[in-house]
Amino acid sequence: MPVTSKFVALKNYIPTGLPKETDFEIKTKEISLDAKNNILVLNLWISVDPYMRARMTERKNYKPPFNIGEEMEGYALGIVKESKDKNFKEGDIVFSNFGMRDYFVCNSNDLKKIEPMNIPIQTYLGPLGMTGHTAYIGLFKHGELKPGQTILVSSAGGSVGSTVCQIAKNMGCKVIASTGSDEKVKWLKNDLKIDHAFNYKKIENLVLHLKEVCPEGFDLYFDNVGGDFLESAIFQMKNFGRIVICGRISQMNATNPGSGLKNMAHVLVKRLTIKGFIIFDHENDREQFETDMTKWLLEDKIKFKETVYEGIENTPKSFIDLLEGKNIGKMLVKI
Amino acid sequence: MPVTSKFVALKNYIPTGLPKETDFEIKTKEISLDAKNNILVLNLWISVDPYMRARMTERKNYKPPFNIGEEMEGYALGIVKESKDKNFKEGDIVFSNFGMRDYFVCNSNDLKKIEPMNIPIQTYLGPLGMTGHTAYIGLFKHGELKPGQTILVSSAGGSVGSTVCQIAKNMGCKVIASTGSDEKVKWLKNDLKIDHAFNYKKIENLVLHLKEVCPEGFDLYFDNVGGDFLESAIFQMKNFGRIVICGRISQMNATNPGSGLKNMAHVLVKRLTIKGFIIFDHENDREQFETDMTKWLLEDKIKFKETVYEGIENTPKSFIDLLEGKNIGKMLVKI
Repeated sequence: MPVTSKFVALKNYIPTGLPKETDFEIKTKEISLDAKNNILVLNLWISVDPYMRARMTERKNYKPPFNIGEEMEGYALGIVKESKDKNFKEGDIVFSNFGMRDYFVCNSNDLKKIEPMNIPIQTYLGPLGMTGHTAYIGLFKHGELKPGQTILVSSAGGSVGSTVCQIAKNMGCKVIASTGSDEKVKWLKNDLKIDHAFNYKKIENLVLHLKEVCPEGFDLYFDNVGGDFLESAIFQMKNFGRIVICGRISQMNATNPGSGLKNMAHVLVKRLTIKGFIIFDHENDREQFETDMTKWLLEDKIKFKETVYEGIENTPKSFIDLLEGKNIGKMLVKI
Repeated sequence: MPVTSKFVALKNYIPTGLPKETDFEIKTKEISLDAKNNILVLNLWISVDPYMRARMTERKNYKPPFNIGEEMEGYALGIVKESKDKNFKEGDIVFSNFGMRDYFVCNSNDLKKIEPMNIPIQTYLGPLGMTGHTAYIGLFKHGELKPGQTILVSSAGGSVGSTVCQIAKNMGCKVIASTGSDEKVKWLKNDLKIDHAFNYKKIENLVLHLKEVCPEGFDLYFDNVGGDFLESAIFQMKNFGRIVICGRISQMNATNPGSGLKNMAHVLVKRLTIKGFIIFDHENDREQFETDMTKWLLEDKIKFKETVYEGIENTPKSFIDLLEGKNIGKMLVKI
């Protein structure tokens, strides 16, 4: 029996600037099981993530652009409503890349079954999902984080940033966190026990502020924003420091290229390493992460904060608000 | 019996711009053996190297500034003229950091004896010295060069650059070389058999030129110049490419900071690694280099070209001409 699926589609590409709600539309279509797609899933939670912005342009990137007028995609957690596959049964909780919609049909290759554990299921979109994986791979594989180091994190009130901060704290590191609101500063300091958190919007001279709060400099800068913040961080790196470029949220909606990075001399003189990475390259590199993160979550060593918008209709707004930093922790849409 | 030592001293610091001969002076002083400094050496060959420019400013750097009015230093090869140390005898050829002068006194801790081999002794200031070591460490340790890769080298007609090109060719790599004169292009193409060499001064659009000669892009960029060339190279890197920052000769004499690096987005999207290094960190990392380079030299797989200026009085000029790229291969002063 056909079901009506409601989904989010891009109406047009957005070459520069912040997306508007009118760049998106909510559409419907009839779907039904067939020989190939023999599982019907209803999404419960949808993940919205900054990397999606890059797929809203026509420019070549590491993932192809979204198709105009068709379902956008992204990670999601759903519940199986009907199954003709022996490995999945009604009521199973499943992880997929079929986000940005409520109902969908697919087959068993497209799904990963989530085994029940004593944590909320949406954790699989946060610390146990791409968010946590990004923080973990960035810190350990690319950042080569060692206990006792001093680390700087930008966009620290977001999902990846706040996970980075907590993992580093658990490692006995000193953590300096930058974020965009006093509320997030309070959360980082009081709940996550970060050594120093500040609202970058209230800082006049970032280089001087970093020098003041952390005169010894940084071993590692986990860069979620790029742009001028990256330049300031470079000035305060220790010799042999590492900069992991995970995102560039300050640049993604920029309407001009900005003034450029003027202090590459420091990269040479301080023997810095700058490394860009993308989590989608690490799909086969999850085992140690899952073991460690599950342990930390069960021991309550990683706290997971969510900003939840309800209803598929609010997905475009949730994404725009994410880019504007209106979330604390992981931005999710509950269907 | 005292000997008159003639040496090069800095008259004043040079904060920006190209040094002038009047920034230096040739001075003399009387030296003689004593209980502590019991070896007298006459330099035969003096090395002039771009890194010295950084020591001519008052700015904090990885090596302290030169002292105004005192002997400058740098690597040199000399011959022992008198020795009261049992390990050194008259006629021994020795390597030291007492460059920029003719005679000097020191003790055995300051010298490394050069065992005679079937190569000119000044090779110890070139491929078997800092030059070759820089190329080797940059390519293998930081660049992780693999056979068959495609590599871009700037300042390729200089001592480090031309050694980088030849090592990479010996590894079966495709080498694209940028240099600053048609004469150097000819040498790189005809003598060193580099796949493609070009005079960057004659290129209107470097990004397009790199794309044209090397549509597949670069696995490794060995950066000796920094600035706009680095930006252009980033545009043409392959995914997961590596950029080794060895020098920034285009920037060292700049009188303004330039326009900055505007394409850091590529570092993320292409998952690039950018790594600055300084050869002085690798003093204990010479063994494999010396073994390999000695073998290559004896097999004539590395050619060593020199630009020689004669007399200690010509040292300042040799250094200025080095910064202006008037050398082909290693710049040396013969005493």
